[in-house]
Amino acid sequence: MSRLNERIARLARISATPPDQGITRESYTELYEEGLRLVEGWMADAGLSTRRDAVGNAFGRLEGGSSGGPCLLVGSHLDTTLNAGPLDGVYGVLGAIEAVDRLRGTGSAPGRAVEVIAMTAEEPRFATGCLGSRALVGDMSADVARHLTDRDGTTLAEAMQGLSMDPERIPEARLPEGYADLFVELHIEQGAVLEQRGSRLGIVNAIAAPHDMSLTVTGTAAHAGTTPMGLRRDAFLGAAEIALAVEAAALASATGRTVGTVGAVSVRPGANNIVPGHVEIEVDIRDTELDPREAVVADMLSTAEAVCARRGLELDVKTIAQDTPVNCSETVQKAVAEACVECGIEGHVMASGAYHDAMVLARKMPVGMLFVPSQGGVSHHPDEHTDPADLDLGVDVLAGTLRRLTEPAL
Amino acid sequence: MSRLNERIARLARISATPPDQGITRESYTELYEEGLRLVEGWMADAGLSTRRDAVGNAFGRLEGGSSGGPCLLVGSHLDTTLNAGPLDGVYGVLGAIEAVDRLRGTGSAPGRAVEVIAMTAEEPRFATGCLGSRALVGDMSADVARHLTDRDGTTLAEAMQGLSMDPERIPEARLPEGYADLFVELHIEQGAVLEQRGSRLGIVNAIAAPHDMSLTVTGTAAHAGTTPMGLRRDAFLGAAEIALAVEAAALASATGRTVGTVGAVSVRPGANNIVPGHVEIEVDIRDTELDPREAVVADMLSTAEAVCARRGLELDVKTIAQDTPVNCSETVQKAVAEACVECGIEGHVMASGAYHDAMVLARKMPVGMLFVPSQGGVSHHPDEHTDPADLDLGVDVLAGTLRRLTEPAL
Repeated sequence: MSRLNERIARLARISATPPDQGITRESYTELYEEGLRLVEGWMADAGLSTRRDAVGNAFGRLEGGSSGGPCLLVGSHLDTTLNAGPLDGVYGVLGAIEAVDRLRGTGSAPGRAVEVIAMTAEEPRFATGCLGSRALVGDMSADVARHLTDRDGTTLAEAMQGLSMDPERIPEARLPEGYADLFVELHIEQGAVLEQRGSRLGIVNAIAAPHDMSLTVTGTAAHAGTTPMGLRRDAFLGAAEIALAVEAAALASATGRTVGTVGAVSVRPGANNIVPGHVEIEVDIRDTELDPREAVVADMLSTAEAVCARRGLELDVKTIAQDTPVNCSETVQKAVAEACVECGIEGHVMASGAYHDAMVLARKMPVGMLFVPSQGGVSHHPDEHTDPADLDLGVDVLAGTLRRLTEPAL
Repeated sequence: MSRLNERIARLARISATPPDQGITRESYTELYEEGLRLVEGWMADAGLSTRRDAVGNAFGRLEGGSSGGPCLLVGSHLDTTLNAGPLDGVYGVLGAIEAVDRLRGTGSAPGRAVEVIAMTAEEPRFATGCLGSRALVGDMSADVARHLTDRDGTTLAEAMQGLSMDPERIPEARLPEGYADLFVELHIEQGAVLEQRGSRLGIVNAIAAPHDMSLTVTGTAAHAGTTPMGLRRDAFLGAAEIALAVEAAALASATGRTVGTVGAVSVRPGANNIVPGHVEIEVDIRDTELDPREAVVADMLSTAEAVCARRGLELDVKTIAQDTPVNCSETVQKAVAEACVECGIEGHVMASGAYHDAMVLARKMPVGMLFVPSQGGVSHHPDEHTDPADLDLGVDVLAGTLRRLTEPAL
């Protein structure tokens, strides 16, 4: 087993849940700190000089041959969801340490500085995700930290203070202008596209962004036995038609790549003998292209309004998130493609359907991503798995990519 | 305000919830006992001799002119759901006391004995309803009482023992053969049919019975961003189509009266960014005619199977209840119709969509029911309301009905 795979297994043991229930290492916990210290030790072993910022993002820096100028950032996150797998985020940080260790191992300093970054709170313990990367781009504040709460009602500010971090210092985490000019993130696909194609490495050309909405459908709760079908205003039947309209609109999208999902559904009163009077659904629609995505949203909402008008239901639509898709750096895509050839494989150009720190950092600098296959497309689950050989291959490609991106000629 | 309406208001104050949150007086509680003792006092005031049986059903007997022979039972239940209204069940018991008091007031004994009955646990505190009437027909046991639990995990047996009732004696509550040969229940409609017709009294010709099922739809939970539409097995979209199939099948029923409802829906994992892998819905289909109802069930299940086959989903169907509809006694219907004419109104012949103790007692004797209008069709809710004049009129009609049904000539 490679050192990378051994370290992934070692970090997986730092978990609030027993192994058969997956890995739980949430941001801003003592366990997370324990994992981070272990990783900072590995950064130091690779000859990187380490530091942490005001929100807990950790950096390991390899200086370049020429001093000054923006550095290249490479990494991902170390926190997990509840009962997660061992790879999401972790692979991108530990893989970056391996790849940068090889850069250093060439004997000559890279053309410019490279920093491995382990970002904090990518997973939405505090409802909103990517808090570490948001702080890096200046989109976080002490005020926000006092208002974000986890499922137990603990605020982000309280969680930070519990680990001796001062929420008032959050603005200091913002990267100065010119600090870095490129971010590269290695990640498991979290989908089944590579596996189904038989491809071992994905070259990400775009990151899809979600338009998330909460739709509330209000009708009239009524007795399921005494209310004739013609006198009903059944909120669930309206919501059912809307969910099918989400699917139909996504299938009819101009790009052919739009995905639309109704994943959360709340039906009230929720008794088998009462016609539902109130239903809330969460709708998530994603594409790598903004206009086609918004066209799907408009199509779906138009159907939803027609459905509710026909059924005598009220419809309330709240926007939860409306992010902008990201086009990945052509320079990074070219470097990844060349590195693939060097490793004897052909990279598959594809979009990322999932949200990543790269999407947030893209507000300030070009970004690029590399994917390795996810077995069965499973992620955020104890069964999350990638063939260890594919994990090693991903590091080989990342190392080749970083070499190209840091060559003095570049 | 009539004595009936005063007593309804008096009993409504015996509640675990404050008045603005409706009435909560669940079976087998100290509050229920308090309410029952009050009602037994009113039975005694009406000259009725009272007794309780082994499960807590209360009886108030007016002897007939000729001794021996089966008695006529008239009444309903005194327990409520959570946050209920003041009328469901209560009206049928207090209305029966008023009507029987008038029989007694004629000065001559009725042609046969009449018993007012206040049945216990009609509402499903212990998951299954009509426990009092089930005991009367011999369909209850100590073993069942040890297995039925309420939402806090208290068993019926424990709740009975807490009130010094012995579950082992439950079989003693079974009515002996020949004890009673007719049951009449006065009730609020709990629907909006009478209100919409402008009718003040419903003559129930049949009681619809439910076929209740739990349908589990299993697909594959998957990432909402990374899973293309074509690779999904979305359990919620399958369930949405099934819910719409329930509606379509009910609307196409041979009787034109079938109602079909999906009232309870559970979606897992239930996160906005995960394609649902597992959905459970409860389906309730009712009609007053068995074969047309079963045809609707078959129609709906056939569509559900086709939907799941097309979507690659698994479908599991569990039957929760499959009761037989009841045709009400022609003799009672005729007596009610004549009593309506005597009161200057025309009764509206209609079916009961709701489940009642009468449906259970129908296993052993003919039954009949009278309905008064429910404002807005609302029941099991603090807003449950009937015009007090309609409540009084319902008692007038019940009194006329009982006089006809107990005439020595009958």
